[in-house]
Amino acid sequence: MREGDCEGRRLKEQLTNQLPAAGNGLLDRRLFLTGMLGASLAPIASVQGAEPSTSREQRKPWMQAPGDPLNPYGQPSKFEAHVTREGIGSQVGTTGSGASRTPLQSLQGTITPSGLHFERHHSGIAQIDPAQHELVIQGAVKQPLRFSMDDLARYPLTSRTYFLECSGNSAANLRDTAPDMTCGQIHGLVSASEWSGVPVSMLLDEAGVKPEAAWVVAEGADAARMHRSIPLEKMLDDALIALYQNGERLRPEQGYPLRLFLPGYEGNTSIKWLHRLELSHLPAMSRQETSKYTDLRADGRSEMFTFDMGVKSVITSPSGQQRLQEPGVYEISGLAWSAAGPIKQVEVSADAGQSWAPALLETPVLDKSLTRFRIPWRWSGAPSVILSRAHDLHEQQPTRATFLERHGASSFYHYNAIQAWQVSADGSVRNSYAYA
Amino acid sequence: MREGDCEGRRLKEQLTNQLPAAGNGLLDRRLFLTGMLGASLAPIASVQGAEPSTSREQRKPWMQAPGDPLNPYGQPSKFEAHVTREGIGSQVGTTGSGASRTPLQSLQGTITPSGLHFERHHSGIAQIDPAQHELVIQGAVKQPLRFSMDDLARYPLTSRTYFLECSGNSAANLRDTAPDMTCGQIHGLVSASEWSGVPVSMLLDEAGVKPEAAWVVAEGADAARMHRSIPLEKMLDDALIALYQNGERLRPEQGYPLRLFLPGYEGNTSIKWLHRLELSHLPAMSRQETSKYTDLRADGRSEMFTFDMGVKSVITSPSGQQRLQEPGVYEISGLAWSAAGPIKQVEVSADAGQSWAPALLETPVLDKSLTRFRIPWRWSGAPSVILSRAHDLHEQQPTRATFLERHGASSFYHYNAIQAWQVSADGSVRNSYAYA
Repeated sequence: MREGDCEGRRLKEQLTNQLPAAGNGLLDRRLFLTGMLGASLAPIASVQGAEPSTSREQRKPWMQAPGDPLNPYGQPSKFEAHVTREGIGSQVGTTGSGASRTPLQSLQGTITPSGLHFERHHSGIAQIDPAQHELVIQGAVKQPLRFSMDDLARYPLTSRTYFLECSGNSAANLRDTAPDMTCGQIHGLVSASEWSGVPVSMLLDEAGVKPEAAWVVAEGADAARMHRSIPLEKMLDDALIALYQNGERLRPEQGYPLRLFLPGYEGNTSIKWLHRLELSHLPAMSRQETSKYTDLRADGRSEMFTFDMGVKSVITSPSGQQRLQEPGVYEISGLAWSAAGPIKQVEVSADAGQSWAPALLETPVLDKSLTRFRIPWRWSGAPSVILSRAHDLHEQQPTRATFLERHGASSFYHYNAIQAWQVSADGSVRNSYAYA
Repeated sequence: MREGDCEGRRLKEQLTNQLPAAGNGLLDRRLFLTGMLGASLAPIASVQGAEPSTSREQRKPWMQAPGDPLNPYGQPSKFEAHVTREGIGSQVGTTGSGASRTPLQSLQGTITPSGLHFERHHSGIAQIDPAQHELVIQGAVKQPLRFSMDDLARYPLTSRTYFLECSGNSAANLRDTAPDMTCGQIHGLVSASEWSGVPVSMLLDEAGVKPEAAWVVAEGADAARMHRSIPLEKMLDDALIALYQNGERLRPEQGYPLRLFLPGYEGNTSIKWLHRLELSHLPAMSRQETSKYTDLRADGRSEMFTFDMGVKSVITSPSGQQRLQEPGVYEISGLAWSAAGPIKQVEVSADAGQSWAPALLETPVLDKSLTRFRIPWRWSGAPSVILSRAHDLHEQQPTRATFLERHGASSFYHYNAIQAWQVSADGSVRNSYAYA
């Protein structure tokens, strides 16, 4: 008998016994690997007694007549029209400063469709004619350079899948009481795409960096002239002049015709509609790195240039404002990410943190990208608090109490504490601070 | 001195000498890894003498007034309206049998945006109300099962990035003379997405497969009742009931609300608008596996059930109907894929196959997915024939002559021969059979 057979049999026995992985119904993630979850836990949701129901099917209009014609650029089904960006709004009294959020609870996998990528603009969406747009590299360089879009098209590209997260993501959970919101409304300022672009290092090498250069001020061509100061070291590392997102040219709201992309950095440093890189000895001390986008410490003092987004995870299903229809087996699924490198592990608890079980991580687990985690859960029908806790190679996602201890209650940016979802006896799911 | 420094210096020396990797200007792919391509090969395309051109920029309308408002579901820039599916058409005398192709030459990276995924329909695009749709499993099973879309939503999902290729892809290159078409028009019946779905094995295990079952007939709910017979073994391996594509629910033209997805298999076996899986001892011998979708051998006899798509690659840039503006350095870039597993190597030739150099493969190189390859090329201005040749773990992509020898000139499906692009002295690029 082969070893694999033996392992298979042992697993099957565990399945038959529905071996728990942790308290309150969390089941072994290896159930996924056997393909036997259906049989072992049946019935999950299937309705038995199927017969060919030809007569009923023949009444369906889409089986009676040819369907719609081919089309040059496809769109979602009209039956999915409710799946849109969430929490869309501009701040009153501004010229288009606002945000929209990815509906994380409606999505699966790790790629965010570009139409649902979150937005954060400081003066609306610039609609730029690429024929009129240029990128200038100037300041502490041996040879200032100016690139048309046609020039840039000649350069070699790099393609990588990365997450992008606004540093203000999840700040709703800093309110005194847990707001009753969806997962996307709270955490949807994070998305992931395959970005293709020209390495900034290649262009800076061509310009010739002068020895005194230590910072690069990146400025956008939107009406806000949004700009941030980026350490030269990051620019020479993995920074991209991104031209493509998920295969096609950037969408306007992502900075068409080009944006800076800084993997793992807080979102607004990845300057959209980029038109200028200026090298200098010192940072610009711009509005968006002084009065905004700085972090509070517990003593009330600010920290500037806190670029990296911390290790974080969130259960996207089941999540806020969703509802479990009946007791039974469900998949708990969510996303994890970190600027510090690949996610090492995500643990899930269904008993408010009394016990934890490791979730399955979908492969490949990529550096600075979203990682999908999954674990089966048998919900008994009793009120339950479900949690996820991510680990990267260095750190563990903090509790809410730990975060507040470090940053104080007036903090706003870089909130990455463990999210608790309260499942009530009626199956309804609600945002909660039950695990602090 | 660290070893890395030494390696860096040696590379830089090579760059300074612009060490060729193969004949007619192919350069070392390691140029990409150093970030020094810009400096070493300058000027590629940059225009020198950049000064802050504030006065000119201030005339640009998008810097003068706030941009467009946030939107619930984003779309491409109006300046990219020319990037659409290509070769869109239905066959005359049919009820919506037709295809559209992915514009491969306009895309980058490996993910195909869902709006540009190729289409192949046998009776148009069914517009299905998910509340009225069911999936039935019947035939040689212990317990027939019927699933509503709500039922299926309870099952655990798996997410993987896979290519999908129509077996009729690239058949244009079987014509006697090489047609003057774009890369997408010839080869655009291949796309790649992140697919999330329920493993078919899980549902079959729940139904209980009877010992006599060897095939599964999958049928769609479109007006064509498109159906194919799939070996049970494949269904128990990596087959998915796909519900999500690139994060969101399937698009209608990809089978909303659900399709079968068979990684590596010819596209039409991944039945769209799936409503029935029927297990049986024998295949159905349906129209689409007898009169169509069979392969010719050189002796004129047919082979049926040739599911796997062979190892293949194509240079997407520069490619048919594109034009190089002037002699100089360009990136040659393209895609490679195989049903037999991850791509091991892609070689590129710029001298009509006299010499070959290995291209850089973008990571991660995934099983049964598209792999992007890149290599820098200094075009001298002389007429040149550029080629790419992919290798998977078992095989090398065939020449056109080898393919024809195996399948005969009347063959139509599974054409995977090496694509030659002829670059003329004026920079224009044209489809060619120069390398056979």
